[in-house]
Amino acid sequence: MPEIPGVRLATGAAGIKYQGRTDVLLALFDKSTSVAGVLTRSKCPSAPVEWCRAKLKGGKARALVVNSGNANAFTGKTGRASTKLTATIAAKAAGCRPAEIFLASTGVIGEPLDAGKIVKQLGGLAREAKADAYADAARAIMTTDTFPKLATRKAEIDGVPVTINGIAKGAGMIAPDMATLLVFLFTDAAIEPRALRASLDPAVDNTFNAVTIDGDTSTSDTLLIFATGRATSRGAPRIIDWDDLRLAGFRLALAEVMHDLALQVVKDGEGLTKFVSVKVTGAESKRAARVIAKSIANSPLVKTAIAGEDPNWGRIVAAVGKAGEAADRDRLAIWFGDILVAKDGEVAPSYAEKVGAAYMQGPEIAIIVDVGVGKEAATIWTCDLTKDYIAINADYRS
Amino acid sequence: MPEIPGVRLATGAAGIKYQGRTDVLLALFDKSTSVAGVLTRSKCPSAPVEWCRAKLKGGKARALVVNSGNANAFTGKTGRASTKLTATIAAKAAGCRPAEIFLASTGVIGEPLDAGKIVKQLGGLAREAKADAYADAARAIMTTDTFPKLATRKAEIDGVPVTINGIAKGAGMIAPDMATLLVFLFTDAAIEPRALRASLDPAVDNTFNAVTIDGDTSTSDTLLIFATGRATSRGAPRIIDWDDLRLAGFRLALAEVMHDLALQVVKDGEGLTKFVSVKVTGAESKRAARVIAKSIANSPLVKTAIAGEDPNWGRIVAAVGKAGEAADRDRLAIWFGDILVAKDGEVAPSYAEKVGAAYMQGPEIAIIVDVGVGKEAATIWTCDLTKDYIAINADYRS
Repeated sequence: MPEIPGVRLATGAAGIKYQGRTDVLLALFDKSTSVAGVLTRSKCPSAPVEWCRAKLKGGKARALVVNSGNANAFTGKTGRASTKLTATIAAKAAGCRPAEIFLASTGVIGEPLDAGKIVKQLGGLAREAKADAYADAARAIMTTDTFPKLATRKAEIDGVPVTINGIAKGAGMIAPDMATLLVFLFTDAAIEPRALRASLDPAVDNTFNAVTIDGDTSTSDTLLIFATGRATSRGAPRIIDWDDLRLAGFRLALAEVMHDLALQVVKDGEGLTKFVSVKVTGAESKRAARVIAKSIANSPLVKTAIAGEDPNWGRIVAAVGKAGEAADRDRLAIWFGDILVAKDGEVAPSYAEKVGAAYMQGPEIAIIVDVGVGKEAATIWTCDLTKDYIAINADYRS
Repeated sequence: MPEIPGVRLATGAAGIKYQGRTDVLLALFDKSTSVAGVLTRSKCPSAPVEWCRAKLKGGKARALVVNSGNANAFTGKTGRASTKLTATIAAKAAGCRPAEIFLASTGVIGEPLDAGKIVKQLGGLAREAKADAYADAARAIMTTDTFPKLATRKAEIDGVPVTINGIAKGAGMIAPDMATLLVFLFTDAAIEPRALRASLDPAVDNTFNAVTIDGDTSTSDTLLIFATGRATSRGAPRIIDWDDLRLAGFRLALAEVMHDLALQVVKDGEGLTKFVSVKVTGAESKRAARVIAKSIANSPLVKTAIAGEDPNWGRIVAAVGKAGEAADRDRLAIWFGDILVAKDGEVAPSYAEKVGAAYMQGPEIAIIVDVGVGKEAATIWTCDLTKDYIAINADYRS
């Protein structure tokens, strides 16, 4: 991972839950840093999510503190006190106001978080922080992840190259007690908070909001982007308006980083044996296409069929039907990859079950469904549902 | 099961898919029989569902033909031809018009149904039909069910006793290729179709629409009630108006039969080890209570925690949060049975994890959640999600 001017990182082992590994990340940002973010829509958000929601209004960030092992969710007043304490100590370490500190926690829900363990680390971490610690950072925020998730892209703004780095953890909302998707993006571009936020929204819709492992939304999902503005020293403009056309290349690169991280998250899905894309075409609206694709991607019957390498397209029809969005049963068409399985509402004359069965043995499965009522399309990425998913989530004791 | 005057039943082995068992049910009704029904909301309904939807408008029934082994869903023109042929031949056997024939099919989706196998049976079945064959009827419509599902209740209408019998199959939408819930109810009460339908709706909401195994809605869900009117010979009135107060006792008994059958369906859930009720109180509206309860009941993380006998109430909080309905996180309370687990948005001081863990070892789990914003409540019944569910649905080859 390249360095991002204006970003320094450090990780420590606070022993919150895990032993023998890092579980705290401190990221420090230069003074000029803008921040924007997208937070869980859960009606029971964690204390750090509430903290971030309030502080995002200020649009300025000087530090990010993340811990793994405890989500600080459903922890009442104690939880709010923990976030406040962490932010206060982090602000001292970073030399800024608490309102410029951003927080995220991931791990067990409902257990009080001992913020004392975290704040003890912060002074030392602030002194150690360095520009090339992205791999360590990605590892410190892992819970049940089996590999750290990193991505980077370059873009040009008004002819000046800028860099976007990203780290992520979690497999969506699938982790056991450890529910949570955390994504942190860093760039040296100079973009004001509102324009930064406007760049995030469309990318989130087509990346992190387009993946699903088990349909379980976390109390703590947090995506934050920090723009240090240090590229101005190399002549990059400071972007203020959300519709500034000079942002086009940056937005494309940002979407690519997020797409890359989102697919890494799916590929680390608990118990996964197959990576699955579900594309719905011919829908009435983009929203309808997405609802139908999610209905297929979240169907336990579709997911278990894929786990069993069974080209059971009848279950796909059932999932289209239950989505509640317009679909013309008698014009419905289904493909597995390039194989036409069904068209005009019944099995295709050319389709041979053994060809479908052979396709299902591959590690990546593409399901394409045309619902025959319009021109809109959407893609959702997911994985299969296996006995290992059950083992990981049922046999685990909190 | 008691007999219902005006109803005769016969079952046969047509060899549609299964060998060595019955797979066709013919029910014959006296001339005066009213019919009402509730059909799947799937946008990809089966051919028999479409047939029933059209014929329910007439409100009169003389026969019901059900087959198991093939759902006649997503079968295009062939499927429509099969329903028409079956109804035509059944009408000849019953001495009525095809529009008085009701049809249901359950089994594999997407394979053409050979109606010839069914119609060959109908003449013989019509001759054999008798009043005391409910157990045989319940068995003929089974697919992956492990036991036949029957229930009966008595009620009085204007002082005259009437009987309601019911049979059901399926575990909601959970069965592998064999998705489908079928419910057939029979009574000797004399109730006109519109009043009959009005009696069904509230009962369906609180019974079959309140159970979920895996959230997968079938292409073929069908509930039909047949009222022969033969109780008029014993002085029962013929009920015409939907709000006739003399229906009160009948409605109660009807709801009880449906509740009984709905819970039998859940208790036959694929791979089940625990029977689970989820009650949400303190909601803004009955609809909101139901949405939140379903969000908990359908959460793979909650269901796998129960399978693992893990009192993992954090996952319940997450499921409340993702439901999208109003909930006051800081007033949220959770009980396992009588055990207060959490209140005022955090773990209850009196709660001991080992008490919760002991409770989770029982075969029936009651989850109660008060969301702290209103006065409405709803209950949903479900089961846990186990490796056996995956085995049944993934290892099965179509």
